[in-house]
Amino acid sequence: MRSVPRPVERLIEAFARLPGIGPKTASRLTYYLLRISGEESRELSEALRELHEGTTFCSNCFNITSSENDPCEICSDIQREATVLCVVEDPLDVLAFERTGKFQGRYHVLHGAISPVEGVGPEDLRIEELIGRLEHERIEEVILATNPTLEGEATAMFLKRKLEGITIRLTRLARGLPSGGDLEYADSMTLSQALEGRREM
Amino acid sequence: MRSVPRPVERLIEAFARLPGIGPKTASRLTYYLLRISGEESRELSEALRELHEGTTFCSNCFNITSSENDPCEICSDIQREATVLCVVEDPLDVLAFERTGKFQGRYHVLHGAISPVEGVGPEDLRIEELIGRLEHERIEEVILATNPTLEGEATAMFLKRKLEGITIRLTRLARGLPSGGDLEYADSMTLSQALEGRREM
Repeated sequence: MRSVPRPVERLIEAFARLPGIGPKTASRLTYYLLRISGEESRELSEALRELHEGTTFCSNCFNITSSENDPCEICSDIQREATVLCVVEDPLDVLAFERTGKFQGRYHVLHGAISPVEGVGPEDLRIEELIGRLEHERIEEVILATNPTLEGEATAMFLKRKLEGITIRLTRLARGLPSGGDLEYADSMTLSQALEGRREM
Repeated sequence: MRSVPRPVERLIEAFARLPGIGPKTASRLTYYLLRISGEESRELSEALRELHEGTTFCSNCFNITSSENDPCEICSDIQREATVLCVVEDPLDVLAFERTGKFQGRYHVLHGAISPVEGVGPEDLRIEELIGRLEHERIEEVILATNPTLEGEATAMFLKRKLEGITIRLTRLARGLPSGGDLEYADSMTLSQALEGRREM
């Protein structure tokens, strides 16, 4: 549009490339930043620049860590149980577990799930590294905490077969009704699984 | 949280300061940027840095313009009608008018509306500059296109009184049912105004 200066257009386009941000929100954010002082834009700009420079993947669990902390704080924390390993798809999943405060073991981040549609095969995930850890660390239980989706299930099944020879306990997270959910709005897959997994009171 | 490296935390905080972006969306955006190549973060970082450096306010209409184009492209376009001036609150409003392609006049951006609650008085808006333009340019009609809100109406009323001595045509945008809207869902204020402003077919 002729009435939009190039720097404004450029930022709108950059925002709009982010997931979940459409052109309208991108405009709104850009004009908001224009209206306020330059301080906030500068801070965001700096934080973006440092995101990749200041972080790396932990060479042990492949979670994100500060460049100066490798292995990451969780891997190098001797207080955490070394015998339980929670295998997740993404770094955000580690965050979700840490927020519960209920898991004291360690993690292994696969960086995705097997998805033929998106062209993600087992070789694209950190599976070889997982097997390496199972051979060298004294792990007794592996929790396959991939997502309860088609891709997550396929990945868990693949890992189950792959780890068959190794004598460890393999577990999967419980399926059922989400806390605070309403039974009448539960999808039938969830409800079936809640029924199947019912427990004595 | 201990499991979040500082550069990640910093970007999450910077995103979360933007309007309409909560901590969850901020995390999601940050981890998305971490997952993909650094190219996208760099582009966004650069675009943010250039936003303020590469733009300025047009010294005539106070719309946003590239630093090298002052007065802005609209003000310096001799094809546009110099006799009609559309007074708006924000640069985004100029964009909205330009998108319609129906307005051939010029703009004046007030940069806000009078709002005692938010502590915005007439002296905070570009009103003196508007009066200056009315004295020096050959403007015949001023469209008071402030928002149809309490603040926008108050600003329009203030301007009406302020411009009383100056013999020009003052107009205000039509009020009525929005296109594509459903009559039964229209609020009674809108419906009253649609009725009041009804026209012969």
